[in-house]
Amino acid sequence: MLYDFNYYNPTKIYFGKDSMKNLSKELACYGKNILLLYGKNSIKKIGLYDEVLKILNECGKNVTELSGIKPNPSYSQVLEGARLVRENNIDLILAVGGGSVIDCAKAISVSSYAKGNPWQRYWIDFEEVDNEIVPVGSILTMTGTASEMNAGSVITNEEVTVKTGRVFNPDVNPKFSILNPELTYSVPQKQMVSGIFDVMSHLMEQYFSGEDDNTTDYVIEAVMKSLINSSKTAINNPKDYEARSNIMWCATLGLNSVTGLSKTQDWQVHNIEHQLGAYTDCPHGLGLAVISMPYYRYIFKNGIDKFVRFAKNVWNVNPDGKTKEEIAREGISCLESFAKELGIPLTLRELGATEDMLEKIAFSTYEGGGYKYMTHKDILNVLKECY
Amino acid sequence: MLYDFNYYNPTKIYFGKDSMKNLSKELACYGKNILLLYGKNSIKKIGLYDEVLKILNECGKNVTELSGIKPNPSYSQVLEGARLVRENNIDLILAVGGGSVIDCAKAISVSSYAKGNPWQRYWIDFEEVDNEIVPVGSILTMTGTASEMNAGSVITNEEVTVKTGRVFNPDVNPKFSILNPELTYSVPQKQMVSGIFDVMSHLMEQYFSGEDDNTTDYVIEAVMKSLINSSKTAINNPKDYEARSNIMWCATLGLNSVTGLSKTQDWQVHNIEHQLGAYTDCPHGLGLAVISMPYYRYIFKNGIDKFVRFAKNVWNVNPDGKTKEEIAREGISCLESFAKELGIPLTLRELGATEDMLEKIAFSTYEGGGYKYMTHKDILNVLKECY
Repeated sequence: MLYDFNYYNPTKIYFGKDSMKNLSKELACYGKNILLLYGKNSIKKIGLYDEVLKILNECGKNVTELSGIKPNPSYSQVLEGARLVRENNIDLILAVGGGSVIDCAKAISVSSYAKGNPWQRYWIDFEEVDNEIVPVGSILTMTGTASEMNAGSVITNEEVTVKTGRVFNPDVNPKFSILNPELTYSVPQKQMVSGIFDVMSHLMEQYFSGEDDNTTDYVIEAVMKSLINSSKTAINNPKDYEARSNIMWCATLGLNSVTGLSKTQDWQVHNIEHQLGAYTDCPHGLGLAVISMPYYRYIFKNGIDKFVRFAKNVWNVNPDGKTKEEIAREGISCLESFAKELGIPLTLRELGATEDMLEKIAFSTYEGGGYKYMTHKDILNVLKECY
Repeated sequence: MLYDFNYYNPTKIYFGKDSMKNLSKELACYGKNILLLYGKNSIKKIGLYDEVLKILNECGKNVTELSGIKPNPSYSQVLEGARLVRENNIDLILAVGGGSVIDCAKAISVSSYAKGNPWQRYWIDFEEVDNEIVPVGSILTMTGTASEMNAGSVITNEEVTVKTGRVFNPDVNPKFSILNPELTYSVPQKQMVSGIFDVMSHLMEQYFSGEDDNTTDYVIEAVMKSLINSSKTAINNPKDYEARSNIMWCATLGLNSVTGLSKTQDWQVHNIEHQLGAYTDCPHGLGLAVISMPYYRYIFKNGIDKFVRFAKNVWNVNPDGKTKEEIAREGISCLESFAKELGIPLTLRELGATEDMLEKIAFSTYEGGGYKYMTHKDILNVLKECY
């Protein structure tokens, strides 16, 4: 069964070594007041802050800054950004950084002129945005989330210890995103592999659903294979331009809708990780990696044919003389070996979780799933396997 | 080497059995005056004409019609459409049909308010459009060209016997396209396989270039494999919804830019076919099929590694104990077998070409190419192999 779908993705992508040359052309489309959003000091260390500020000045823009956006961007920062947007009559929010900064920019974009409480309305009750959306542009420095080409925004509300994501409609997409693979060279190895596994996880969570022969599944396998191949190069040579380019584009394709079309999808690994992130603040991709293998071993019998296909098509597992279960398990083991090759820790303990957190994480995660419906009890079983 | 690229594709896609329900919502975004563009009577036979007209009436639109758009749409029809646009103050051109009708709609869109001679300025001198672009929407009934999600427009100028294509900027893309796979059921088998080979050809012409490890190549292989798989089903059971859906979406992905990103590409097979089309008016995809195998056998040694990869990854050719040349040739033979399985004729003679046309076609085709630069002489050599 192929499901009906709508596809609309209006983000302009400028990709490559010289992609920054397009910034001034894009800036010309917006008014004078810019909110420049970034994380800690990394964009200053690599000279990117100076470069962007120079272009903004040359274009005659008034720049307001909000820095220190956290890896799990907090709702209090969203409110701070929204206040700056209103006070400075901001025309464009320019996010310079990774997915966290861009997610935060989108959250500020929809919250600035919201009626009522934006957290409750947009992240809890999933209401449609009925207020002005402030345009967002992005300059990406870290790959993984595909936030540069989608309308997703994951925010942590520290007051209630809830981290939750929301995909808005495409009007909230960045209007433009500048993707220069060289800007990702300075990302620490741990962050790079976290990003890589985040992409792998996005692809798997879209892939492991349905029993049809869907073009999208072929496309997902292609992106997985390119990602795996280039990651193995990048782990040994982080300045391999071709490898880092491919990883960057795989990341964007991994969650810009193209790899999800007509798929029912199963986002339970992400749901669990979001709660893990709310409790431990661990890097998102590492959390996903720790959860993925136990999760897929827990559910694979409910979607055995797809796991067999995954083993054969993505990992070239030779099926001769093996049962479906053996082939499927071998595929998941290949995934695990890949995570090890990237140097990813494989227990929750190593990510700073303590045993008493497991129940809290399990019971604050939404029940649901794909091939198998996961109750809180099931989620707790998986978390115990990860610990 | 991965090349910098820009990607921007603002077409909204509504895909599936119930996708027509989105038409009235889209129509509400435009003014009252609609130019309804279609081919011969096929949309009347399947009841689509009545369905669309009913929706247009319910939305209170004034409808002007231009029908009889040819499989190779002619420049005289473009001028006729442009006149109707001006006379009726058209707000939206609604193309109902296959790629020809949509290509013609885009040509009318850019030509209606052009200064000077649009043929010369836009299709010969490739100037940027500097006049009003009339919005286009499409309802697709035949797959192949991806015209529903790109800015391409191939037009035949009968006065000078030149058929030539042009990709405009994304402002010329259809604003929305409605893709219902069931609407393609009534397409005659010959047209269906012509469309399928057109898609395969688009994919190959993007794939056979470069020597890098590019994510796009993986994506192209994926779309090829899904297309081949579903085509083998559809040829025996044209009403298999899953197969026709996949073919329809493969066609769109095949030329909506996603499968061309960062690729230098080699469009020489299309260039030759366009001239063949100008002389014989044969179905586009069949012309491509006849030219493809001799063309790729003529050039493969200049890009041997890519042809080996094609054989192994797309056709599962077992490389054991074979030379690169043998593997590459086997891949091209698999492509030929696929064309035969689809029932495609494999000589120019069967498509209505006569021997005296060969030189005319060869010498009116642009020189150029990818792995191998093709002179007029080279093109003639290939055409003789096809005859």
